Amino acid sequence: MDELVALCKRRGFIFQSNEIYGGLQGLYDYGPLGIELKNNLKQSWWASMVYDRDDVEGFDASILTHPDVLKFSGHEDTFTDPLVDCKSCGLRFRADQIPDQCKGEELTEPRDFNLMFKTNVGPVDDGSTFAYLRPETAQQIFINFKNVLDSTSKNLPFGIAQIGKAFRNEITPRNFIFRVREFEQMELEFFVTPGTDEEWHKKWVDNRLQWWIEQGIDSNNITLLNVTGDDLSHYSKSTVDLMYQFPHGIEELEGIANRTDFDLGSHSKNQDDLNIDATTIKNSSSNAKLAVQDLNTNQLTVPYVIEPSAGVDRGVLAILNEAFNIEKLEDGKERLVLSFKPHLAPIKAAVIPLKKNNDELVSTAISLKTKLQKMRLGRVVVENTGNIGKNYRKHDEIGTPLCITIDFDTLEKGSVTIRNRDTMAQETIDIENVPSYFRDFFQT
Amino acid sequence: MDELVALCKRRGFIFQSNEIYGGLQGLYDYGPLGIELKNNLKQSWWASMVYDRDDVEGFDASILTHPDVLKFSGHEDTFTDPLVDCKSCGLRFRADQIPDQCKGEELTEPRDFNLMFKTNVGPVDDGSTFAYLRPETAQQIFINFKNVLDSTSKNLPFGIAQIGKAFRNEITPRNFIFRVREFEQMELEFFVTPGTDEEWHKKWVDNRLQWWIEQGIDSNNITLLNVTGDDLSHYSKSTVDLMYQFPHGIEELEGIANRTDFDLGSHSKNQDDLNIDATTIKNSSSNAKLAVQDLNTNQLTVPYVIEPSAGVDRGVLAILNEAFNIEKLEDGKERLVLSFKPHLAPIKAAVIPLKKNNDELVSTAISLKTKLQKMRLGRVVVENTGNIGKNYRKHDEIGTPLCITIDFDTLEKGSVTIRNRDTMAQETIDIENVPSYFRDFFQT
Repeated sequence: MDELVALCKRRGFIFQSNEIYGGLQGLYDYGPLGIELKNNLKQSWWASMVYDRDDVEGFDASILTHPDVLKFSGHEDTFTDPLVDCKSCGLRFRADQIPDQCKGEELTEPRDFNLMFKTNVGPVDDGSTFAYLRPETAQQIFINFKNVLDSTSKNLPFGIAQIGKAFRNEITPRNFIFRVREFEQMELEFFVTPGTDEEWHKKWVDNRLQWWIEQGIDSNNITLLNVTGDDLSHYSKSTVDLMYQFPHGIEELEGIANRTDFDLGSHSKNQDDLNIDATTIKNSSSNAKLAVQDLNTNQLTVPYVIEPSAGVDRGVLAILNEAFNIEKLEDGKERLVLSFKPHLAPIKAAVIPLKKNNDELVSTAISLKTKLQKMRLGRVVVENTGNIGKNYRKHDEIGTPLCITIDFDTLEKGSVTIRNRDTMAQETIDIENVPSYFRDFFQT
Repeated sequence: MDELVALCKRRGFIFQSNEIYGGLQGLYDYGPLGIELKNNLKQSWWASMVYDRDDVEGFDASILTHPDVLKFSGHEDTFTDPLVDCKSCGLRFRADQIPDQCKGEELTEPRDFNLMFKTNVGPVDDGSTFAYLRPETAQQIFINFKNVLDSTSKNLPFGIAQIGKAFRNEITPRNFIFRVREFEQMELEFFVTPGTDEEWHKKWVDNRLQWWIEQGIDSNNITLLNVTGDDLSHYSKSTVDLMYQFPHGIEELEGIANRTDFDLGSHSKNQDDLNIDATTIKNSSSNAKLAVQDLNTNQLTVPYVIEPSAGVDRGVLAILNEAFNIEKLEDGKERLVLSFKPHLAPIKAAVIPLKKNNDELVSTAISLKTKLQKMRLGRVVVENTGNIGKNYRKHDEIGTPLCITIDFDTLEKGSVTIRNRDTMAQETIDIENVPSYFRDFFQT
């Protein structure tokens, strides 16, 4: 992990947030390469969820959330950690994470501490008008169920997908970007007819496992965990977690939950008119019935929900961890290489003029970069430093799949050298053929 | 404006946030089409700022911000509105926006009210440990100046670009998504050698004006405003606002400010060692000098900053407003059409089987959709409703540039009909040629 964290800072993937003022615990910033990697992962998820299917719509809600949303979702009551105060040192800890030096000391009884951040809204600051920073993106999908249904005329089964930030006031943020206070989620809420939920749950577990493998996660490093007993959330009929071998241990990468009709039922008015299976709090604040109506019988059904919920940041961490390789070369030396899948690589290709001060080489490089950039397959850069060996090492370290060198043969014969990150093989092709080579390489 | 707001809700562009619980003022959610439009606009900005240039790097920081950042930026002292309380009704108003029925009543003296949201961080809730929700994305770019410089080896001039959410506790949010409490910004901080700042300021004003025109904004609807006097921010040497004719009036779409060396200087330690032109607060909290070093002379220079800062949401509003057209047709009827530029259209093409229950037509449509979707030029949908006329009207209303109909000629002769949103002309082409037609249409 330490090597990975150091590489992330040195190469501009991830920095400690607010670092020049001593940092804020559990917050990280994404640098020039990190934001490209993260965006590529998000776009890959969005493409597989929204674009490649005809039964899922996208969504993007506000982070600030009405307290009623998190009252009826159960978060106000249950989204808590037990905390104790040490009477000797005066510090506060999670009851299950008391540091060694406090274990002999007198502690207060554990008290429930809610993990949601809240903030005052409007000009009066007396606590009467506040909003939560959402602790998950899911709830705003549920409360917008009718808006999406009415504007898209979807029928069951269909889903609503959202990528966005969520906030949890973790007592002990830790393990780099794994457990943080501000993070991004990729959540799909997939609405199905009651009775078909178990079958859809299985399908989504398979689908999500396959997707992570396509992002470059070795299937040997993922195990499926059937969540049981106290670990199962109050809303869930069954949950399968995809557990990944992170550098610090085996932890959840994504959870796929069968949330039943708990959420739509909880946020509905006139709940007694609806056949809700789940146990919900009585709701007299909502102004909507979150159900689908059969046009022939007029009967209302509250759909069940299957939820594949993944963390973007822990996804980035898993992918960095999988891609991180130190290879022994034939000459006895080592090379550090990030073997990203091509679609996730922050930079797709570096175009390198052999000499930095040669106008013809540089302008040919810029012109090729412009052409490749226009193909909208990802970021292409010109490396105008004149040191090919150093550029190869740098682009191995940041995971650039292709390096394209513009040399004097390019000017004379129109040929360029393409060097492959993984095989280190170099091949010479005509510069006119680079765009189609590039397309074939990146467009899967 | 009312027609636009109604269309946005009906077709799933934009909804009032937290609507089923009565809504939260100044917050909006993006529906299935809105999120595609917004993402397309953000990607167009990112491509023009980061991908098409070699002198700008991307960035993405946390929203939660250390109080020191906003102390030394000046926000704690100056990011305020004057508020008064009405002694009669007990309500609080902006001093410059007192409603008519209060104007005769006794009011308190105006007091400064800070517009930043704050939230407690960590387990102790006594106000000692809090963070702000950032009021702008810019500050975190400044405090990460050295991190980006060190990891990318850039030289002046170069820029750092960021897209992300920002939060302001507006007293009177209004005008749909124009003035809201949670919004997205697209900000570039472009660092230049002092003395070249005025020239770069002009270049960026031209660049940004041109970019908005490329997004479909009529140049006749934008005017340049030289901000002067009290309207000029404390940090700015000069600011040019791009003023757009919104439905509710002429207001700022983007501001391009010459922020001098105020921000980097403000966030630096040992300020006396640096030649800072701007007036800054003395800073003994920062652990970094935010300056570039000349490798020959070792001299430190604090760069000047040119900042083009645009609002994503008001950009979306401007683009919706420009695209919104009610056309008189030859037959005397009207059609509502959103004439988005192709790269911004939420859906690029609808593939429509002539009959909904014909397996061959439907599977041909799905297969064509899959092929076009893989080209990664944007969202393509299958419209499986069997009503061509209704589909054309719907896709005019949501701004889909192309409708491709699969009919029995497709099965027999391999031809499809492509209908153009703007001209309403229909042409018949071979289905094999659709991908290249599609690429030529959307890849500029």
